[in-house]
Amino acid sequence: MRLIINSGGPSAIEAWRAQFRAFAPELDVVGWHEEIDPATVDYALVWAPDAGRLATFPNLKLIISAGAGVDHILADPQLPRHLSIARMVTARTQTEMAEFVLTSALMLTRDIKRVVDNQARGHWEIFDSLRVAADMRVGIMGLGHLGVASAQLLSRVGFPVSGWSRGASTLDGMPSYAGAEQFGEFLSNTDLLVCLLPATDATRGILNTATLSQLPKGACLINAGRGSHMVTQDVLDALDSGHLHQAVLDVFEKEPLPPESPLWSHPGIIITPHCAAIPDRRERARHTSLLIEANERGEALPNIYDPLRGY
Amino acid sequence: MRLIINSGGPSAIEAWRAQFRAFAPELDVVGWHEEIDPATVDYALVWAPDAGRLATFPNLKLIISAGAGVDHILADPQLPRHLSIARMVTARTQTEMAEFVLTSALMLTRDIKRVVDNQARGHWEIFDSLRVAADMRVGIMGLGHLGVASAQLLSRVGFPVSGWSRGASTLDGMPSYAGAEQFGEFLSNTDLLVCLLPATDATRGILNTATLSQLPKGACLINAGRGSHMVTQDVLDALDSGHLHQAVLDVFEKEPLPPESPLWSHPGIIITPHCAAIPDRRERARHTSLLIEANERGEALPNIYDPLRGY
Repeated sequence: MRLIINSGGPSAIEAWRAQFRAFAPELDVVGWHEEIDPATVDYALVWAPDAGRLATFPNLKLIISAGAGVDHILADPQLPRHLSIARMVTARTQTEMAEFVLTSALMLTRDIKRVVDNQARGHWEIFDSLRVAADMRVGIMGLGHLGVASAQLLSRVGFPVSGWSRGASTLDGMPSYAGAEQFGEFLSNTDLLVCLLPATDATRGILNTATLSQLPKGACLINAGRGSHMVTQDVLDALDSGHLHQAVLDVFEKEPLPPESPLWSHPGIIITPHCAAIPDRRERARHTSLLIEANERGEALPNIYDPLRGY
Repeated sequence: MRLIINSGGPSAIEAWRAQFRAFAPELDVVGWHEEIDPATVDYALVWAPDAGRLATFPNLKLIISAGAGVDHILADPQLPRHLSIARMVTARTQTEMAEFVLTSALMLTRDIKRVVDNQARGHWEIFDSLRVAADMRVGIMGLGHLGVASAQLLSRVGFPVSGWSRGASTLDGMPSYAGAEQFGEFLSNTDLLVCLLPATDATRGILNTATLSQLPKGACLINAGRGSHMVTQDVLDALDSGHLHQAVLDVFEKEPLPPESPLWSHPGIIITPHCAAIPDRRERARHTSLLIEANERGEALPNIYDPLRGY
């Protein structure tokens, strides 16, 4: 059984082999850069594969994304469309994402950006009142595994949480809204908007003026979905007008965020370098090994990309 | 019934009167600066009262601290020692403090100081692994109302929590340590030390080299107790040697923190301006009204300063 890996570059392949030896000792792990007979490849673990390369493996059984999204794989115009793509959604990923959203939500609630900017110039500002979690109605866009895990953690801390997804979804014990027709009602009840949507044609640019203007004045934003969800100028305009109070942004149209981006120095923005959830190599090797075993036994696999839903 | 108030200065007295009208319309509220017959004062709500002034009220029944601590009242050498002092510990204070400790703990877990310092210089740093709450054993010093509320909230999020207090206390479902003899064991099992102790002679300077050196290398610190708990140079030395990784400091020996303090610019320190918990005027007026009513009915009052415990 052979697995080809395109994640971390040629220098990472020995580290990958060491991890897989622990979980699937019989698996033959090869690097994307190694010369091999394409007919011998059974599985591929990939992030942003070179266009056309996956199509050269005639016996490929399954594509495994190295991350929770699949947009970097769908970008390949010659992608073998008959193959399933498994998304990397592990328990650890869910915990990391939920804690990232909670950390960001609490930083926005407590105005931490102002606190750290004050510190940078040695300024002691007296705060005469504080917001607490119960004062911030959080609205989560995207109710997949990451959205649900985040909603549950925020709710446990005391944030009132609701959710919205394109199709009908439910959130245990929390209000949820669905589709374009309930989007306005969802937004008007949201003080802190969290984007955890998948990157699809339908969600591209959804964080735009039309959306943001439906939030109450002074609302906050967390984007941990994809950079393509955000119309950057619209977010900047909303911050500059005061309609949006602050934002925590983890993902960007172009990464690394270019030095000339106006986002870096905006007083209303905290920039995190796409670090909301980073499943480590060990965790991904373990998860990939389990997926391969389950697939070999003919079992249904979790978190398979659904072209109709778009994620 | 007359209440005299020393909190917020002369300009705040009208705002205080407006709040008390809602909760205790019959109460006669006067400001610390107003000329009155000292014999007419029944109650005093104070923060750092001028030395000797409280002793001039012959019919004073109760002193109410405007904050959770009483050190600013005990500093008065002519304090009438026969009177009870009620500490301002409200449900809101507990929530605010617990959320401050949680926010700080998550910021330390996620290395947010490094993230915001990177942002300030437009630097995109790739993080290749993340810590989560479950990786950080939190040890809380001080198991009063604020310590217990913080322990419960942190535990709900997934932090392993233990507690330590000078006397024997227990933490529901969490390990707790007591006294000098168990201090070392408590510290050696703590990755993130949280100080919520009261300011007493016994706790002065407790955050010193002897204490910090018993933490595991790379531990973090949150001080939301009092500035006097901390030996500033010892904390700086522990950070500079790398024994302590990072700290969130909310309280300081001198406040506002002077511009020349080396704490402001230390890369391992987040400075927050004594804003962990700020009960607002409305909340304090409500709580004070309830205390006065209960005292007039002869009931036992909650959170009365105990000279033997020191808080």
